[in-house]
This record gives sequence, structure tokens and C-alpha cells, in this order.
Amino acid sequence: MKVKEIMDKEFIEVSPGDSIVDASLKMEEHRKFTTPVVDSQGKLVGWITSLDVTRGLREGQKNIGDIMHSKEDVVHVHQDDPARLAVLNASQHKVVSIPVLDDDDVVKGVVRTFDIVKTLSQLYEVKVYKIFEAMTRELKGVSWEELMEASAIVTRRRTGKRVTPEDYERRIKNSTFGEAIWATGGLEKFFVGLIAIGELVIARKVARARR
Amino acid sequence: MKVKEIMDKEFIEVSPGDSIVDASLKMEEHRKFTTPVVDSQGKLVGWITSLDVTRGLREGQKNIGDIMHSKEDVVHVHQDDPARLAVLNASQHKVVSIPVLDDDDVVKGVVRTFDIVKTLSQLYEVKVYKIFEAMTRELKGVSWEELMEASAIVTRRRTGKRVTPEDYERRIKNSTFGEAIWATGGLEKFFVGLIAIGELVIARKVARARR
Repeated sequence: MKVKEIMDKEFIEVSPGDSIVDASLKMEEHRKFTTPVVDSQGKLVGWITSLDVTRGLREGQKNIGDIMHSKEDVVHVHQDDPARLAVLNASQHKVVSIPVLDDDDVVKGVVRTFDIVKTLSQLYEVKVYKIFEAMTRELKGVSWEELMEASAIVTRRRTGKRVTPEDYERRIKNSTFGEAIWATGGLEKFFVGLIAIGELVIARKVARARR
Repeated sequence: MKVKEIMDKEFIEVSPGDSIVDASLKMEEHRKFTTPVVDSQGKLVGWITSLDVTRGLREGQKNIGDIMHSKEDVVHVHQDDPARLAVLNASQHKVVSIPVLDDDDVVKGVVRTFDIVKTLSQLYEVKVYKIFEAMTRELKGVSWEELMEASAIVTRRRTGKRVTPEDYERRIKNSTFGEAIWATGGLEKFFVGLIAIGELVIARKVARARR
């Protein structure tokens, strides 16, 4: 996934010559805490936040050029960079948004942290039973019922708690991947549990084939 | 994971009677775009953003009470809510931060989207070979070399591309879970690939045991 796939193309921009008052009206209207500052060709020359604006208004400064951070001090990414880079930048630099540039430094969009949260959290929201459905399709000759039975057995072995295949099915229908990895103690542990289930159903399938 | 585990406890707060000028200085100093407004017991009564402050300064208003959003209009969560709720709220309401309350409505922290990004992205940054290491520990009697060989075979079957076990090992040492699920086309597909590898090594292990 590339930066351009997660960026917001509906962004606002201001120029160094714009008045601070006009910029503040624009930012309030569009509810943006940050805004790229561009030249007449749309190239990034700086960046302002609403906190620069409050200072500018309080201190009676006039133009955006007086309060902006210059391009060199602004975290920015290229539209063809991996989306991962924007994610790492947002969390390392603790910024709420990052301007996205093309080869000519023209601003093409802005990546916002809540858009990143939306994209990242989709993975956590995948229902666990979707993974089990994929597993049943992959393991030809193993039925859903056999998979639930093996899952109940593995759960009992690992946690000591007695669960029926029906309990297990109900649990995975209601839980998400995010909840499952938090409950099992991490991604590797979650996968290891699934592999243990896979191993059991495969062993049973092989034993059946031998008979 | 609960909200209190991901919230920022180093937050600032203001009172309805504080002057807008003082609040703007505080927000700039601490670089916060948003701030809870609390009463003398620390209970949440409202919320301001730096965009409310720019408007207040421009329009010559005096106190935080004149510009704040009332508590009823503010997205907030309880410290014992599942962290997932804060994540969903941030992405649905497109906010950069959410106040966290205790049973008495006292503000105990603030959840910020870049902290959420940090927490969520840790999962994406897990190295793929960590999952394979866990798999080797789980599948007793299967060596790392056998696992890499099976992985190379499954990759060839699925993609038509010839890879050596050494190529495969190099690839998983350098790639993250996030890259792997993007490359394979989603969580279910990634996991199905792992199950196919597991099935092959288990079949080989069973065949070996039979000899």
C-alpha cells in the first residue's frame, strides 16, 4: 500500500503572503489543525499549525510567512512512498498530519493520523471466524465441525478450561482478531494456537486416510 | 487492553474561568491542539481546540467558558473501557484526541491518535520470521530447515515463482507482518499460506514416522 492510497486529497492550503486572519478563518471553516504553505505552483514551502496561528494572532503578526515553519523543518513523504513510512513518521514525530508531495514537491494530499488509525484498525476488526473459514477451505477434507472440535480440544489443553465445540464457535463468531491477539498474548501466540489446531485436524485426517 | 493502558497521563487542563490568552500560551508551550476543560474537582465540563482559541482571539472573547464545547458534545471514554472503543471513536469522529474519565467524571488522561497509531502499528512491525520461529517451537520434530523447504515449495505452488529455501528465509527475515499481509492480499490469505506450509511439514513428518 502506498501513501497516495491513504492520503486525504481534500486538503486546504495557504500562501506565505496570506493574512493570518484569513488563514485562521479557512482553518476553522475546514476544521484543520495544520495546513501546508505553498507557492504559486503549489510547491511546499512551509507548514503552519493552529498553534502558530494563536501565537501570531496574540502577538499581532500579519502574514503566514511570519509564522510558518520552513519546508526543511517539516516531516513530509512522497506519494509513492510505502504507507508504512507515513505511519512510522506520524508515531515517531507525534504529528497529527503529514504533507504528501510528488516529484516536483507539489502538495498532492495530506496523511492524517485518524485516517491512519482507520486503515490500521481494519485489520484488528477482522472477525476470527473468517480465519477459520479460510482454514477450512485450505485444509481440504476437514469439515467445519472437525475444526471446531479440534479447537475445543486445543483450548482445553492450553488453558485447562473445558469448552464445547459450540462454545468455541460462538466465541470466534463474536470476537475480532484484535481481541484474540490481546487475549492470547500477542500475534505469535495467536498463530501458534491456530497451528496447534491445524496440526490436530491434519493428524486426524491422516489417521482417517490410513484406515 | 484497556483505555488507561494507551492514554497519555501528561495532559494539560484549563478551567472555564481561565482567560483565552493564558490558555493559548499553555497550549502552545505544551504543543497541544486540544485540552479538556475541568471544574475545581477536575471533572470534565467541556473541551476546547486550538481552532476555538483562534476564533476567540480573533473575535476578542475573554474566557474559556465563552468558547468551549460543553461536555455533552465531546467524545469521551472511561479509563476501563476497552482500548478498541477509543480507536473506533477516533476514526469515526475524526478527532485527534479523546478525554478519559473515571467513575466520577474526573479527567485521568487523554488518548491521542498518534499514540493509537503507535500501539496499532506495533503489530504490523512484527517480523515475519518471529511467527515462523513460534511455528517451529510448536511443531515438535520439525526443524527450521524443513520449514523453510516447505515454505519454498508452497510459494512455488502458489505463485509459480521458483524460490530457494535460502531466498525464503532471507525474505521473512527482512519483512514485517504488515508487509506480508499487504503482499499476500489480507490476513486470511496470509494465514492460509502458513496453514499450507504447516500441512506440508506435518504430512512429511507423519510420512517419516511411518518409515
